[in-house]
Amino acid sequence: MSAVNIETVVEFLKGLQDQICAAIEHADGQAKFVEDNWVRPEGGGGRTRVLTNGGVVEQGGVNFSLVSGDKLPPSASAHRPELAGRTWKACGVSLVIHPKNPYIPTSHANVRFFIAEKEGEEPVWWFGGGFDLTPFYPFEEDVIHWHQTAKTLCQPFGESVYQKNKEWCDDYFYLKHRDETRGVGGLFFDDLNEWGFETCLNYIKAVGSGFIDAYIPIIEKRKNKEYGERQRQFQLYRRGRYVEFNLVFDRGTLFGLQSGGRTESILMSMPPLARWEYNFQVDESSEEHKLSQYLVPRNWV
Amino acid sequence: MSAVNIETVVEFLKGLQDQICAAIEHADGQAKFVEDNWVRPEGGGGRTRVLTNGGVVEQGGVNFSLVSGDKLPPSASAHRPELAGRTWKACGVSLVIHPKNPYIPTSHANVRFFIAEKEGEEPVWWFGGGFDLTPFYPFEEDVIHWHQTAKTLCQPFGESVYQKNKEWCDDYFYLKHRDETRGVGGLFFDDLNEWGFETCLNYIKAVGSGFIDAYIPIIEKRKNKEYGERQRQFQLYRRGRYVEFNLVFDRGTLFGLQSGGRTESILMSMPPLARWEYNFQVDESSEEHKLSQYLVPRNWV
Repeated sequence: MSAVNIETVVEFLKGLQDQICAAIEHADGQAKFVEDNWVRPEGGGGRTRVLTNGGVVEQGGVNFSLVSGDKLPPSASAHRPELAGRTWKACGVSLVIHPKNPYIPTSHANVRFFIAEKEGEEPVWWFGGGFDLTPFYPFEEDVIHWHQTAKTLCQPFGESVYQKNKEWCDDYFYLKHRDETRGVGGLFFDDLNEWGFETCLNYIKAVGSGFIDAYIPIIEKRKNKEYGERQRQFQLYRRGRYVEFNLVFDRGTLFGLQSGGRTESILMSMPPLARWEYNFQVDESSEEHKLSQYLVPRNWV
Repeated sequence: MSAVNIETVVEFLKGLQDQICAAIEHADGQAKFVEDNWVRPEGGGGRTRVLTNGGVVEQGGVNFSLVSGDKLPPSASAHRPELAGRTWKACGVSLVIHPKNPYIPTSHANVRFFIAEKEGEEPVWWFGGGFDLTPFYPFEEDVIHWHQTAKTLCQPFGESVYQKNKEWCDDYFYLKHRDETRGVGGLFFDDLNEWGFETCLNYIKAVGSGFIDAYIPIIEKRKNKEYGERQRQFQLYRRGRYVEFNLVFDRGTLFGLQSGGRTESILMSMPPLARWEYNFQVDESSEEHKLSQYLVPRNWV
């Protein structure tokens, strides 16, 4: 068993960021990510990469960050008092892709690692992450492909891993005030350390490359499908729900904003354009009505 | 001194809603408010009025609601345990106007009354409310007029009322993660009962009509000013900040969404269209740069 080692995680994460950016650029076919390196005054920094106005991607960001501190604040260790006062490091890759074509779903993925250390004691660490898909005009075969890819990557880590993390994802990406999920889900996990460092690291590696295997084929399949102003308007309306989730419920976003994180990198998840309309309703016989059936947790594979 | 009486407040509020809608429709010159009456299963209901695609107003809502319950939930009485278990009623008028022309500021106003009762004991009640202005391209004379109107209406209620509620407004409408206020402020107050029922009611009456006196002349002055795509894009970008405030910080919005309030009426405050752009910067010599100087609290009158 290899020792707990944040350098190994960081090296993997930077490589993953490169790999995902390359895959998205290739699928986009026109625009390139622009990199923005930033330093966090309190420790660490990041490598934010943003692609805008591409052939496929209207706005997307793939961020790497490594942040650290001398002393865990009480708010961060409220439920784990044994961590208070420890030095800590957190690193991760987080991405959101907002495609232009309403037939391509928005997607989000994240893998992260946290470690809190204290001289003379065992380090406390865990991994977290996952990926989830937010279609506007869902295609059942795309959703099945997405979940099948998730299930396949989970398989080597245990029979129940997919089901557990799939349900966790459905629970997490839920808009209570709308009584609907953000999209069709995928995987979500946190506090993962029970398998030991090496296996946990292998799992987030599988999640990282699984995201590419899950998303790129959906882009390719839908990117040339023609759409009109009606589909565009529905997409903008539904992006409003994405904003509502991220700003009202997403713990990562809220913790980041409240703890003095880098606002521009955190809010890179926001859509380039979104709209709200009072009491917007869709006709029960319309193409748009189909979406509501996808925003209730379901077993896809 | 007149007795504490929610019917008097409700009657005033409904009249205020009518008055504000009439004033906005007159200034708009084209569109009319559409009314939507709704009932709250747990008690009470509301009268939501929305105007869209007007000559001046892109989207605006003026809502009246009266909601009630048998028993105050512990979350609502955490800081006032003497209220736990009381029957309660809350009523208010709340409005947000999102004009189309970027030279007209977005505005918000709210007046509200809360009462908790228990057989054989004195009722516990308070008023709250205020109004605030969110310009995109601020005109100093408009901001001074806005604050002068606020100051004048506060005058009869005490020498320090304007200053206190103006500062409260600056503190409340503050986006911590952006280190800027939502706009140029105005008035904000809560838990108001120290003057007795009648004077407090007179104060919210003054705030209600003060809003009309403060806002309508600004609409009239700016509604014919020509603008282009550049101003429109800046307005949409800045509306993103409005969304961020409402969903991350606004206690009324968050409490409403968490407590099972009527989502469509609560989120009527959202702009019809908003955009986000990574690391958007304005040139220091530009017209847009002026705004940042207005998003720091200042004494206007």
